[in-house]
Amino acid sequence: MPQISLTTLSRIPLIKRGDDLVAVILRAAADDGVEFADGDIVVLAQKIVSKAEGRLVPVASVTPGEQAIELANATDKDPRMAQLILDEAAYVMRRKPGVIIVRHKLGHVGANAGIDQSNVEHEGGEHALLLPVDPDASAQRLHDALRAALGRHVGVIICDSMNRPWRLGTIGGAIGCAGIEVLDDRRGQHDMFGRELKVTMINRADSIAAMATLIMGESVERTPVAVVHGFAVDAHHGRAADIIRPAADDLFT
Amino acid sequence: MPQISLTTLSRIPLIKRGDDLVAVILRAAADDGVEFADGDIVVLAQKIVSKAEGRLVPVASVTPGEQAIELANATDKDPRMAQLILDEAAYVMRRKPGVIIVRHKLGHVGANAGIDQSNVEHEGGEHALLLPVDPDASAQRLHDALRAALGRHVGVIICDSMNRPWRLGTIGGAIGCAGIEVLDDRRGQHDMFGRELKVTMINRADSIAAMATLIMGESVERTPVAVVHGFAVDAHHGRAADIIRPAADDLFT
Repeated sequence: MPQISLTTLSRIPLIKRGDDLVAVILRAAADDGVEFADGDIVVLAQKIVSKAEGRLVPVASVTPGEQAIELANATDKDPRMAQLILDEAAYVMRRKPGVIIVRHKLGHVGANAGIDQSNVEHEGGEHALLLPVDPDASAQRLHDALRAALGRHVGVIICDSMNRPWRLGTIGGAIGCAGIEVLDDRRGQHDMFGRELKVTMINRADSIAAMATLIMGESVERTPVAVVHGFAVDAHHGRAADIIRPAADDLFT
Repeated sequence: MPQISLTTLSRIPLIKRGDDLVAVILRAAADDGVEFADGDIVVLAQKIVSKAEGRLVPVASVTPGEQAIELANATDKDPRMAQLILDEAAYVMRRKPGVIIVRHKLGHVGANAGIDQSNVEHEGGEHALLLPVDPDASAQRLHDALRAALGRHVGVIICDSMNRPWRLGTIGGAIGCAGIEVLDDRRGQHDMFGRELKVTMINRADSIAAMATLIMGESVERTPVAVVHGFAVDAHHGRAADIIRPAADDLFT
């Protein structure tokens, strides 16, 4: 039977602006004796991609505007963090004391526009880490560099923890993808009794991101890269941007 | 490094009302040479649990009431299906032509109250398959029976495909759990730089359900059981009911 395995790489150092993530990953994989096959998928925590791309912002450098001050007052947040969130957001979707839920300019909906202050170096004052500017492009660059280095087709997912309505507890989701089928669209196909499948578009990228994020851990584990082995190379490749449901179709705006 | 593996069992027969799922799983595992260790998790598609528990309803047996006829008219659905959905629902959350999103009495939010007509036998007329009456109790019975048969602590997740706001494509989620930590609550713990983690409650059950559902497939694969290997036995055990976010905390009602 097909078997899928997931493992984290044990020796990823702290990532700094400008680090070559592919070089870091290949070194860590070699240290752990992990070899790559066609169809393997490397899942990277958003945090290390953002750090490598220099998305760490000193909070003291931010001057909050009027809208940010109002938002901060309404939510008991630091006005400078509110400004960073507004700068990243297309619009604020919900707010209450302690909570700001926005649609990020990338289309993803979540708390604080994905801006994070955990597991971030606060050297010389408090910092905040923004999402990569274009995570699909980041994933594509990593995918291309892995191919150049290995001669293999290795899919890439950049994952982030997400809160959800109705269900407690975060799960990982995909914010950047390359070299994998993101949405497996089975509409129009038939079930095992020959009846047409009504709605079956399977989100492969989010499903893999969820499990990979779980094994990475999210606090002190220092294992921000997972390798997924056992899938064949997908015939069609998508982007995480494909996941964003068109606003006109959405019933929860 | 810790490695997690997932595999589906290849020889699960079509399940009928009254089937002993543990006996079926143990036979299929033996056929595939799969052995169980403490900490392994068996993930079962909701569909086979519902079928074993006799939750298949002939659509012709349903008489729609006034509210169901109104709902059916508004959504272009069969009034009898609308009645089944209303019977399973605490309340209708959103509706538009082709779409009925409800909060199920179990607390889960989704399309059509989880009622499914794909991969269902329609012998003697159209049928619809309801969720198990109490999936956490079903999971607990399976967990206890696995322990009795194997002398091992094998966690159980009953999974179902879920649609989500904002993101296209279904992913699996947990609707019944036993013998595993469902929500890993890290609040109050510290990150790797000693800063307190603000919000980190990780939904382990949904993360595992997502990946397991992906490898099961959802159309003609006939592999409704996955075995997850590599986790240690969790110290604390929860229920899928724990996942339901209290309505008072929810911003998307």
